[in-house]
Amino acid sequence: MSESTPGPPPGTTVLVLDAEPPAPPPRLGGLTGRARILHADEASLAGRLPLADVLLVWDFTSDAVRRVWPGGGPRPRWVHTASAGVDHLMCPELAASDTVVTNARGVFDQPIAEYVAALVLALAKDLPRTLELQRERSWRHRETRRIAGTRACVVGSGPIGRAVARTLKALGITTALVGRAQRPGVHGGDDLDRLLARADWVVCAAPLTDATRGMFDARRFGVMQPSAHFINIGRGALVVEDDLVAALSKRWIAGAALDVFAREPLAADSPLWTAPGLLVSPHMSGDTVGWRDELGAQFVELYGEWEAGRPLRNVVDKERGYVPGP
Amino acid sequence: MSESTPGPPPGTTVLVLDAEPPAPPPRLGGLTGRARILHADEASLAGRLPLADVLLVWDFTSDAVRRVWPGGGPRPRWVHTASAGVDHLMCPELAASDTVVTNARGVFDQPIAEYVAALVLALAKDLPRTLELQRERSWRHRETRRIAGTRACVVGSGPIGRAVARTLKALGITTALVGRAQRPGVHGGDDLDRLLARADWVVCAAPLTDATRGMFDARRFGVMQPSAHFINIGRGALVVEDDLVAALSKRWIAGAALDVFAREPLAADSPLWTAPGLLVSPHMSGDTVGWRDELGAQFVELYGEWEAGRPLRNVVDKERGYVPGP
Repeated sequence: MSESTPGPPPGTTVLVLDAEPPAPPPRLGGLTGRARILHADEASLAGRLPLADVLLVWDFTSDAVRRVWPGGGPRPRWVHTASAGVDHLMCPELAASDTVVTNARGVFDQPIAEYVAALVLALAKDLPRTLELQRERSWRHRETRRIAGTRACVVGSGPIGRAVARTLKALGITTALVGRAQRPGVHGGDDLDRLLARADWVVCAAPLTDATRGMFDARRFGVMQPSAHFINIGRGALVVEDDLVAALSKRWIAGAALDVFAREPLAADSPLWTAPGLLVSPHMSGDTVGWRDELGAQFVELYGEWEAGRPLRNVVDKERGYVPGP
Repeated sequence: MSESTPGPPPGTTVLVLDAEPPAPPPRLGGLTGRARILHADEASLAGRLPLADVLLVWDFTSDAVRRVWPGGGPRPRWVHTASAGVDHLMCPELAASDTVVTNARGVFDQPIAEYVAALVLALAKDLPRTLELQRERSWRHRETRRIAGTRACVVGSGPIGRAVARTLKALGITTALVGRAQRPGVHGGDDLDRLLARADWVVCAAPLTDATRGMFDARRFGVMQPSAHFINIGRGALVVEDDLVAALSKRWIAGAALDVFAREPLAADSPLWTAPGLLVSPHMSGDTVGWRDELGAQFVELYGEWEAGRPLRNVVDKERGYVPGP
């Protein structure tokens, strides 16, 4: 879906909510002479937001936009976030406004699909245990699982979920894709529990919205097979983390891998670090070499559309909380 | 290639060279009433070999056949090994004899292809470091590599090498296959160094023969890119292990994974356990749940062909040391 938006007046101001060092700022050299670039951090965002025609949310780990937006003053007409999810910035006031919100749709699809394949294969082939035994200099042959012919259920039918499904299918895994509503090639939410009950691999690639928050809870882990593995590369709050730890401890499921967490960075005293059969990675599934440059280039490209008064791509449905199909 | 072999006389004796406990014996219930089954271990093989019409080498880690065969007495007319490689049993006397040798061609193709994909993805996505950081409860974001668009060189164009190439291609990796001689879809050995020089992933799936022993040596590691990773799922002696350790230490290549070793099990004091960037696994790449049953069933099936006087499949070219193409 796309939406027509007016082009910028001369002297457009682009405000960048910077990421914390050492993360580099976006490369916006392509906008030289076309826009005034202002920078803000979490502390200065409230003061500078009224000056912005366009806001680039470069620090996609911050929820400063959601906190600051409802305050007084003019608001930018366009907000772009350098992330696939928009849960960190959406608030009722932004949703109700005329401001257009766009996301980084496309940049993360293939990297995340590969990362999920890496996790599925690592779990099937018992790689974590192999590395543990290597540290102990211990030669211990084990039988592992064949993935061809197993079943996956990928929850989330956006471009990331679809790329994950394509990659798992290419590896010979029978893969079902589940979205909000049934459409060709995509199961609706009504089929979810039935598909979870027979999946060897459950992959969560859903957007975080009011409808999906906490959707992976004790009941859903209880539906899964004892041999099933659960993988989350969506958003942490899609999972009730205590329920997952309990499900692993009680052997309701065989293992899991989380790349995202309700609170990031994960606290050093979190029980997730040591939950049995759980692989923890620091929200990096989509971040392959060059990803920041790609995100910057994507914004510059969208800016060109905006500048020319053409319809923007990657426009988020602010009520639903994601860019609708296909 | 297949070869006509005479059927068994009544009262055929099948001798099984058993694996050491706790590895289970083959399930040969399908031969009940059709053959007399004798068992031998390494110590008793010399005494029992003259009694055998057929030898099943169930302990494919043993080189007892190679040692015992040249001794005196009648020899079986058919030897089957429950492995893809035949390097552990071939000797000049067996090669010169009329005895037919068959192998377990087919059983390991898909499992090993998946295992190689697991290693490529684990190395690309820095999973060993992720598991290390998890043990330290340390949240450390890193950028990883995208595998789509990278290049692989798979050395060994038998069914295992071809399955590996198919799987890597399915993951978007540009993959070249190298065999002894050039044929459609397969590069000849003359292209090897050129392909190694531009590969991101070098996978060794070659049979161990006099022509291939030690083929991955200092010179060949020197040809590879500093960013390249080397994976061996063939036989340990294809690699000069000291040269690999040196190449890793000097950063001639970025990393490696070995599933096979010149001496197995790998000694506790081997420098390979701790070589920088080396992932060690205990010769298990092809051994997925049910593999022993599949190996037993495959022998029973071949026995049916032998019994009926039909040509055997999986017949090894004893001079070359593998089952020739396609």
